Amino acid sequence: MTVHELTTRLAQGGELIQVSLPCQVVQLRTLRARNGNPYIELEFTDGTASQRVRVWHDHPAYPECRELEEGGFIFLQGVLRRTPWGLSGEELKVRPLTPDEVEELLAGPPDRHVFQEKAYQKVVEFIGKVTDPRLRKLGLSFLEEHGAQFRRAPAAREYHHAYRGGLLEHVAQMLEAASALEPVYPNVNWDLVRVGILFHDSGKLWEHSCGARTLASHSTRVGELLGHIPIGIELVNRLWRDLSHSPEFSLPGEPPAEDVRQHLLHLIASHHGQREFGSPVTPKTPEAWVLHYLDNLDAKLAMLKAAYEETVADLRGIYERRPPLEGRPVEPLPRYRST
Amino acid sequence: MTVHELTTRLAQGGELIQVSLPCQVVQLRTLRARNGNPYIELEFTDGTASQRVRVWHDHPAYPECRELEEGGFIFLQGVLRRTPWGLSGEELKVRPLTPDEVEELLAGPPDRHVFQEKAYQKVVEFIGKVTDPRLRKLGLSFLEEHGAQFRRAPAAREYHHAYRGGLLEHVAQMLEAASALEPVYPNVNWDLVRVGILFHDSGKLWEHSCGARTLASHSTRVGELLGHIPIGIELVNRLWRDLSHSPEFSLPGEPPAEDVRQHLLHLIASHHGQREFGSPVTPKTPEAWVLHYLDNLDAKLAMLKAAYEETVADLRGIYERRPPLEGRPVEPLPRYRST
Amino acid sequence: MTVHELTTRLAQGGELIQVSLPCQVVQLRTLRARNGNPYIELEFTDGTASQRVRVWHDHPAYPECRELEEGGFIFLQGVLRRTPWGLSGEELKVRPLTPDEVEELLAGPPDRHVFQEKAYQKVVEFIGKVTDPRLRKLGLSFLEEHGAQFRRAPAAREYHHAYRGGLLEHVAQMLEAASALEPVYPNVNWDLVRVGILFHDSGKLWEHSCGARTLASHSTRVGELLGHIPIGIELVNRLWRDLSHSPEFSLPGEPPAEDVRQHLLHLIASHHGQREFGSPVTPKTPEAWVLHYLDNLDAKLAMLKAAYEETVADLRGIYERRPPLEGRPVEPLPRYRST
Amino acid sequence: MTVHELTTRLAQGGELIQVSLPCQVVQLRTLRARNGNPYIELEFTDGTASQRVRVWHDHPAYPECRELEEGGFIFLQGVLRRTPWGLSGEELKVRPLTPDEVEELLAGPPDRHVFQEKAYQKVVEFIGKVTDPRLRKLGLSFLEEHGAQFRRAPAAREYHHAYRGGLLEHVAQMLEAASALEPVYPNVNWDLVRVGILFHDSGKLWEHSCGARTLASHSTRVGELLGHIPIGIELVNRLWRDLSHSPEFSLPGEPPAEDVRQHLLHLIASHHGQREFGSPVTPKTPEAWVLHYLDNLDAKLAMLKAAYEETVADLRGIYERRPPLEGRPVEPLPRYRST
Amino acid sequence: MTVHELTTRLAQGGELIQVSLPCQVVQLRTLRARNGNPYIELEFTDGTASQRVRVWHDHPAYPECRELEEGGFIFLQGVLRRTPWGLSGEELKVRPLTPDEVEELLAGPPDRHVFQEKAYQKVVEFIGKVTDPRLRKLGLSFLEEHGAQFRRAPAAREYHHAYRGGLLEHVAQMLEAASALEPVYPNVNWDLVRVGILFHDSGKLWEHSCGARTLASHSTRVGELLGHIPIGIELVNRLWRDLSHSPEFSLPGEPPAEDVRQHLLHLIASHHGQREFGSPVTPKTPEAWVLHYLDNLDAKLAMLKAAYEETVADLRGIYERRPPLEGRPVEPLPRYRST
Amino acid sequence: MTVHELTTRLAQGGELIQVSLPCQVVQLRTLRARNGNPYIELEFTDGTASQRVRVWHDHPAYPECRELEEGGFIFLQGVLRRTPWGLSGEELKVRPLTPDEVEELLAGPPDRHVFQEKAYQKVVEFIGKVTDPRLRKLGLSFLEEHGAQFRRAPAAREYHHAYRGGLLEHVAQMLEAASALEPVYPNVNWDLVRVGILFHDSGKLWEHSCGARTLASHSTRVGELLGHIPIGIELVNRLWRDLSHSPEFSLPGEPPAEDVRQHLLHLIASHHGQREFGSPVTPKTPEAWVLHYLDNLDAKLAMLKAAYEETVADLRGIYERRPPLEGRPVEPLPRYRST
Repeated sequence: MTVHELTTRLAQGGELIQVSLPCQVVQLRTLRARNGNPYIELEFTDGTASQRVRVWHDHPAYPECRELEEGGFIFLQGVLRRTPWGLSGEELKVRPLTPDEVEELLAGPPDRHVFQEKAYQKVVEFIGKVTDPRLRKLGLSFLEEHGAQFRRAPAAREYHHAYRGGLLEHVAQMLEAASALEPVYPNVNWDLVRVGILFHDSGKLWEHSCGARTLASHSTRVGELLGHIPIGIELVNRLWRDLSHSPEFSLPGEPPAEDVRQHLLHLIASHHGQREFGSPVTPKTPEAWVLHYLDNLDAKLAMLKAAYEETVADLRGIYERRPPLEGRPVEPLPRYRST
Repeated sequence: MTVHELTTRLAQGGELIQVSLPCQVVQLRTLRARNGNPYIELEFTDGTASQRVRVWHDHPAYPECRELEEGGFIFLQGVLRRTPWGLSGEELKVRPLTPDEVEELLAGPPDRHVFQEKAYQKVVEFIGKVTDPRLRKLGLSFLEEHGAQFRRAPAAREYHHAYRGGLLEHVAQMLEAASALEPVYPNVNWDLVRVGILFHDSGKLWEHSCGARTLASHSTRVGELLGHIPIGIELVNRLWRDLSHSPEFSLPGEPPAEDVRQHLLHLIASHHGQREFGSPVTPKTPEAWVLHYLDNLDAKLAMLKAAYEETVADLRGIYERRPPLEGRPVEPLPRYRST
Repeated sequence: MTVHELTTRLAQGGELIQVSLPCQVVQLRTLRARNGNPYIELEFTDGTASQRVRVWHDHPAYPECRELEEGGFIFLQGVLRRTPWGLSGEELKVRPLTPDEVEELLAGPPDRHVFQEKAYQKVVEFIGKVTDPRLRKLGLSFLEEHGAQFRRAPAAREYHHAYRGGLLEHVAQMLEAASALEPVYPNVNWDLVRVGILFHDSGKLWEHSCGARTLASHSTRVGELLGHIPIGIELVNRLWRDLSHSPEFSLPGEPPAEDVRQHLLHLIASHHGQREFGSPVTPKTPEAWVLHYLDNLDAKLAMLKAAYEETVADLRGIYERRPPLEGRPVEPLPRYRST
Repeated sequence: MTVHELTTRLAQGGELIQVSLPCQVVQLRTLRARNGNPYIELEFTDGTASQRVRVWHDHPAYPECRELEEGGFIFLQGVLRRTPWGLSGEELKVRPLTPDEVEELLAGPPDRHVFQEKAYQKVVEFIGKVTDPRLRKLGLSFLEEHGAQFRRAPAAREYHHAYRGGLLEHVAQMLEAASALEPVYPNVNWDLVRVGILFHDSGKLWEHSCGARTLASHSTRVGELLGHIPIGIELVNRLWRDLSHSPEFSLPGEPPAEDVRQHLLHLIASHHGQREFGSPVTPKTPEAWVLHYLDNLDAKLAMLKAAYEETVADLRGIYERRPPLEGRPVEPLPRYRST
Repeated sequence: MTVHELTTRLAQGGELIQVSLPCQVVQLRTLRARNGNPYIELEFTDGTASQRVRVWHDHPAYPECRELEEGGFIFLQGVLRRTPWGLSGEELKVRPLTPDEVEELLAGPPDRHVFQEKAYQKVVEFIGKVTDPRLRKLGLSFLEEHGAQFRRAPAAREYHHAYRGGLLEHVAQMLEAASALEPVYPNVNWDLVRVGILFHDSGKLWEHSCGARTLASHSTRVGELLGHIPIGIELVNRLWRDLSHSPEFSLPGEPPAEDVRQHLLHLIASHHGQREFGSPVTPKTPEAWVLHYLDNLDAKLAMLKAAYEETVADLRGIYERRPPLEGRPVEPLPRYRST
Repeated sequence: MTVHELTTRLAQGGELIQVSLPCQVVQLRTLRARNGNPYIELEFTDGTASQRVRVWHDHPAYPECRELEEGGFIFLQGVLRRTPWGLSGEELKVRPLTPDEVEELLAGPPDRHVFQEKAYQKVVEFIGKVTDPRLRKLGLSFLEEHGAQFRRAPAAREYHHAYRGGLLEHVAQMLEAASALEPVYPNVNWDLVRVGILFHDSGKLWEHSCGARTLASHSTRVGELLGHIPIGIELVNRLWRDLSHSPEFSLPGEPPAEDVRQHLLHLIASHHGQREFGSPVTPKTPEAWVLHYLDNLDAKLAMLKAAYEETVADLRGIYERRPPLEGRPVEPLPRYRST
C-alpha cells in the first residue's frame, strides 16, 4: 500500500482503514490536549503523497513513536480512523525498516519505478534525436550531470505531479505530445521545443530540495529568493559555457550558437505565459507558445486526475474544488459503448 | 495576385506596387480634400484580405470609380503607391469582372481553394470516424445543413484566420492536432473533443455575416446581442432536438444521450477558458481543457504567422506589435543545418 | 419557530435556545470523538434556512437520531446550546412529523406562504399586462408550465434570497420596482424589461435542484456544466419555438418576432453586467442596463437585510463582514422622529 | 439651431450643413498648413455641445475670424463641410452677438431653459418635502447659496450630461426615480437618499469651472488635486457647521445630528461603488447602495441616449463604441404596435 | 514582561511560558466545553500587543477571573501553556492592579515610553522648523490640540505599527527620512512634505478609537463610514478655518494660502498612491510621490520587522507568510564581518 | 542648443524656432506627398532627445538632405516651424560635422558631460566604500569592464532618464538617497543595497543598444527575448564566477559568499516590486524593498520633471497626461518666501 492509495481511500469515504505502509518520518511533534495529556502528531510520506496521524498518549504505540526521529524510516501497520480532526491511530504498530526495506522504499513503488524508468528512457531517446548538435549535447549533458536529481524531483509542491519523479513524468509526457504534434505543425522548430521542454522547469531541482535519501521536499532559500525560472536560466548558461569548447559546439552549422542560446532561454523565461504568473517576458516566438500550451495542457490534465482521485464527488458527479483549478471538476463523460 | 499578397508586399516595404487584382467593392466614399477637390476612397477585398485606395479627382480612372457600387465586382490593374495616408492610385485601370471571373473570384484563389477542399474532406472524415452514433450524426448533420456557410466563414474578424474559409482551416488543423494527441492521452474522450472542435466556434456563422456572394464580412445584430457562444449552444440544441428521433439516437448504448449533450454544450460554453474572455463557465472536464488549449495553440500560431507576413521587422528581427498579441514577435530560430 | 428565526436568535447572542421546529433532515453523519465515542451531526432545514446540531452518544435522543434518514421529516423540540464548535443538543426530543405536519412544512411558514402567494399573484398580473402578445404569451406559458418549480426555487445558494421561494420574491420585487420607474423613464421598452425580469434567473430552476418534496437544494450537473445564463437562454428558445405557431405569434404587429426574441435573450445574457461575472456579453441596450441595475439593487438590499438579521453587530453598530458584500455593513440611520 | 443639433446632424451623415448658430469662442488658434499658408482653428460652444471648424486664409471670413477673442460671443452663419480632418468653413459669415443675443445665449435654448426650469422646481420641491429638519435645511441652504452655479454645471466633462445644466437634469431625474421607488422599498431612509442625491456630485461645481458668463467648462486645479468626492464632503461639512446653530438644528428629535451628518457623508464618499472608481469607501448601508444604483442607472441611460444621437449606426442598427460604455450600443427594440 | 515579548516567545517556539504581566481586559467571555463545563476566554493587552488565554472551570484562578470586567486592569502571573487551540492557563494568578500600577501601565513600558517621548520631541522640532508660517502654525496647532491622542494612536489595526504610539513612531521615522533626503532632492518643497507626513494618517485618530484610559483599539462608526483619508481632510479644513485669522496667516508671503491648503489636502488624499487602495486621486505632484514612497518604505520595513519577530522561520530562514506582505519573508543577509 | 532644449521650447508653445544643432541622423525616409512630390523625413538626435523634421522637395536644403546617411553626423542650422503634422524646415542649412565636432557631440553637452562625470565619480566612490570585499570587488569590476557602456546607457527608452547617460544619473542619485537614509534605517544592510542599486538595471546595457559612436538606442533581440532582469542576473553570475578565485573572495569573513550572491540576485530579480511588472519574484527582504522604493521614487520624480519641461500646461497649471504617469501632473507648490 502507498500513501497515495491511502489518500484515495480517504477520498472515497473510508473511515477505518487498514494500513501496511513503509514510509519516512517528515515531522514529529509532541503536543498536549486540553486535559494536559500529551499526544504525538506524526507526518509521514513514501514519496507518493504525505499524511498526518495522531497517536494518543494512552495508545500502545505511543512509547515507540516518541523514539522516532525526523527522517527516520518506519513501517506503519494497523488501523487508522478518520476523525473530524484528521487521522487517529486505532490499532497501530510501528517499527524501523530494515536496510533492504529502506532501499526498496527509496526506489519507489515497483510499478511507479518501472513507469518512471521507461519515462526516463523516453526522455533520453527524444533528446538524443535532436538534430542541432549544440542543443542535443546540452540536453544530454544535463541528464548526465543531474539525471539522478531530475528523476527524484516533484513537478510542484502542491498543484500537480507533486510526488517523487513527478517532474520526470511531466517532461516525458510533454515530449510525447510534442512529437505527436510535429507533423501537424511542421514549420515549428521542434529541436528547440524539445530541449525547451527538458529545461523549462529544471530550476525546480534547486527551488525545492529533493535529496537522494529524503522523500519529503521543502522550499529552499534560493528558490524563495529567485524562483525556478531564473535558476533554470542560470543552469543553462552554466552548461552552455562549460560546453562551449566541446566538439559539438565547433561544427560548422547554422544558426549561430548565440542565437540558439537566446531562443532557448526565452522558452524558459516565458513558459508561464503571462508576467503575473512569474514570467519576466511573454512568449514571442512560435516555439515559446507551443511549450507554454503543452505545459499547461499536461498540468491541467494531471490536476484533474488528482482531483478525481483525491477529493470527494457528490451524487451528481460534482467534485470538491481543488485549487488552483477555478471551478469544481465534473465527472468526465465515459466513452461510448453500445449495450 | 491576391490582396493578401499585396498586404505582404506592403509589409516588406514596397512603395510602388504593380497590381492585377480581381476583387469586390466593400465600401465606396466620395470625400473632399482641403482645397475642395473630391476624391474617392475605395475599400476592396478578394476574401484573403482587404485594403483601401484613394483615387484623386484628376486621375484618369476617377470617372469609372464614381460609377462603382458597393458589392460590385471589379478588376483593378496598374500601380498603387504607398503614402503616409494609405494607398494612392498611380496608374490605375478599373473594369467590371466578367461573369466567369466573378465565379472564379467567389471560389477563391485556386491554391487556397484546393487547400480548403482538402481541409473540408479531412473534417468530414474525422467526424465520420466518431464512434458515438449521436455525436457522429450531429456533426454530419451540421456539415450537411450548414457546410457551405461553414466553408465561407472567417475564424475571426481581425485576430486570426480572418479570411474566407479561415474557420474551416482552423477547425481542420485542430482536428489533426487532436488526432495526434489521442495516443498520448488515451483516457480523454476524443469523440467528445472532436465534435466539440467542430462546434466550438459554430456560432460565428451567425455572429458575422458571410454571404454566398459577398466576400466581406461584418458583425450581425444577433452577434452583438448574444456573442458566438450562446449562438453555438442554440445551434446544437436545435440540431439535437431535430435529430432526437433519428435511428442513431435510438440505438442502445451508454452513456445516456442527455449526458452527452450536456458535456458537448460545456465544451462550447467553456472554450474561452476564463469568464473575462466571455465564457459563462470555466472548463471543468479534461475534454474542455483539451479543446481550450488546442484552440489557443492554433490561434496563437496563426497570429504569429500573420504578424511575420504582414508587419515589418527591424534589422534585428523584431516585428511590430500586433494586437491581441501582447509583446512584439521575434523572428523564429531557423532549423539547424550543417554548413 | 423557523430555522431562520433560530439563526437570527443566534446572531443576537443567544446561548441556550428553546426550539420547537418542524424540519427535514438534510444530512446525517455519525462521527467519533477523540475518545472513540460516537456522536451524530444532523443538518436540518425548513426551507427558510439550515443549521447543524451535534447529538452526543450519551444524550437520551441519540437512539432516535440514529434511526433518522436523509430526507426524513422530523420535529425537533427542546434546548440547543451554542458552543464554539456549533450547536449542541441539550434537552432534545425528536419525533417524525405526521402527514399533516409534513404538508404544512412543505407549504412553508404561513406568513411567508401568504406573502409568496401574493408575490406570485403580482407576477402573474404584471406579466398579464404586457402589451406585446408574443412576450405576454411567453411569460404566461412559463408560469403555467414551470410555475410550481418557480415558486420553490431559491434565488441563490448562498448570497441573497437563499431560501425556498426566494427567487419568486426577488422577481416580484423587481417587477414592482420596474413599474414604479416606468413613468420616470418613459422611453424604455418596459414590456421587454418585465419579461426579461421574469426570465433573467429562470435558468436557476435547473442550476440548483428544488424538488417538490425536498426543502434543501444542491447544485446540479447541468448547472455546473453550463451555468444559469445558458440554461435560461435554452428555456426561452424552447418555449419560443413551441409557441411560434400559437395565435399570439401570428397577429400582425411590429417589431418582428425574431427581433423581440434576440432582445429578450440579450437581457438574459447580459444581466450580470460584466464578463468577469459570467455574462458572455455586456449590456448594449437601455433595457439591458435597467434590468442589470434593478437586479443588483434588489440583491444588495436583500444581502444587507440578511446581514443585519444574521450576523452580530458590535456596540458601535458595525456588523460582521458577510461575503460577497465587500465591507462591513453599518447599522442604517433610523428615520427622523421628533421627540 | 444648437451645436448639439449640429453634432447629431453630423452623426447622421450630413456632409454640407447649413448653420445659423449663436455661440461663444472657446479657443482660437492660428496654425499653418504645409505650404506655409495660415488658417484658423476655431472651437465654439453654446452650452449644448462644442465643435471645431477650420477657416482657411483665403476664406472671406478669415479677416473677421482673426479679430475674434476667446470668450467672445459670435454668430456663425453659412455652410460647414465635413472633411476627414474635421469641419471646414465653406460659406461662412461671422459677426458679434448683440447684447440681447448674448443674454439669450447664456439663458440657453428656450426648450432646454423651460425644461431645466421645471427640473429645478422639482428639486426644490423634493428637498422641501424632506422630513428631517436638519437635512431639509441643509439642502435648501445649498440651493439658496449655490443654486445659480448648480444650474449651470454639467454632470461630467465627457461621459454623460456633459452640457450646461446637465447636473441639474441628472439630479432631478434621480430624485424622481427615488420617489418612485419609495413605496417599493419602504424601509429605506428616503430623506437621507434624497439629500444624498442632491449632494452626491455637488463637488463638481468646483471640480470643473462653470462661470456665469462662460459656456465652456474646464478642469480646475482643486478638481485635479482632490476630485469631486472630497470637495463635496468639504461643502457639506462647511454648510453643516454654518447651520449648526440654526433653529432647525435645535429641535428635539432623533436620530442625533452627528449621526445624520456621518451617514450623509458616507453617501457622498461611497457613491462610485468601488474604490477603483475613486470612492474612498464602499457602500455599507442600504441608502448608499440605492444612491449608487440610481446614479449609475441614470448615467448609463444618458450615455446610451447620447450614443444613439451622436454616433453612426450601421445598416444593422449597431452603433459605434463610445467610451466609457464597453461594447457597441445596439438600436433598442421599439415598443409593440399592432399593424 | 510585555505582551509583545510574550508573542515573540511564542513565535520562537516556547510551549510553557512564565508570565508576569500587567495588562487590561479587552474581552471576557464565558463559554462551555462539550461536556458542559464552563471556561473563560480572556483577551488582554498592554498596548504593545494582545493575546487570549483560556481558564478552565477547575483552575484555581477561575473564580477570580469570573469577577473581572472588560476594561479592568489586572496583573497576570504564572505559567501559560501553548496548545493547538491557543493559550491555556497552567498556574495562573490574577489580581487587580494598584492605582500606581495602572498609571504605569497606561504610560507604557519605560523604554518604549522614552523612545516615544523622543519621537514626539523630534516631531515637534521638525514641524517647528517648517519655514512657511501657515504650515508651521497648522502643524503645531494640531500637536497642541490633539497631541495626547496622537501619541496614543496605533498606525494600523493589524498591518504595521499596530500598537499604542505606533502612529507617532511611524510619523517620526518618516520625518527623519524626509530630512535625510532633502539635500538629495533639493527641488522638492520639503515644508509641504513635512506637514503632509504629520497629517497623512491623522484621520486614524478617529478611524480607530484610542481612548486615554483604554489600551485596546477598535473601529469606529465614522471610520467605517468615511475612512481615514476624508477624516484627515476634514481635520485640516477645520484647523485651517480656525487659524485663518491668526497672525501667521496674515503675513505677506507667497504662495497664497489657498494654494498651500489645496496642495496639502492633495498629499493626504493621494497618499495611498492608487485608487484601488482607497485614494480618491492619484499623486500628481513631486511632494505627493515623495510622501507616498516614504510611507510605504517605512510601513514595509515595519511589517518585515514584525514578521521576523512574530512568526516562525524554518531551518532555511524562510518565515511564514504574513498578510498583507505577498510572499514569505526571508532572513536578511547579515552585515559583513571579517573572521 | 540641444534637442532637449528644442523639445522644451516646443512645449512652451514656440512656433518658429531658431536652431543651431549638432546631431546624428537616426532615420532618413523619402516619402511622397499627395501631389506626388517627394519630401524627406529626417529623425535626428544628440543624445539628449530626438525629433523629426520634414524637408520638402522645393526646399534649398533638399539636395543635401538626400545625400545624408543614417548614422551620419550633421549640423542643422536655421528655422524650424511647428505644424500640426510635426516640424517643418523653414530656412534650413545642413552640413557634415567636422571630426572635432563629432567628438564633441559624442562627449555630450559640456554641462551634462561635467554633471555625468561627477555622477560617475560618485558611483565609483560609493562602491569603493562598500565594506564587504566580495560586493566591492564585484561592483568595481563591473565599472572597470563595462564602465564606458554604462556611462552611455539611457535608463529607459521612453519613460524616464531616456537619454545618453540617463542610467548613470539614475544610479548615482539612488546611491545618494541610499546614503542619506542609512542613519535613519541603521539595521538595513546598506552594502547590499548599494551594490544592488549599481546592478539593478545593468541588464539594460544589453536590453537596448548603446554603441560608442551611436547616439540613438533601440531594442535588441536579447532584450526582447529575456528582458533586462534575467540579463542583469546573468551578468552578475558571470562576474561572480570570474572573480571567485580573486583574493577578495578568499578572505575569511561572514556571511558566506553564496549567501551574498543569492541576496544580490534577489534584489535584481524583485526590483519591479510586483510580478505583473516583470519581476519573477516579489521583494522578501528589507533590502529588496528599500531598493524597490528608491528606484520608484527617483523614476517618478524624473518623469514629473520631464512632464513639466516637455508638455504644455493650461492656465491653471494642469499639464498634459504623459504615460506611464496615471493622472495629469499639476504645477508644484513653490517654496515659501515672504514678500
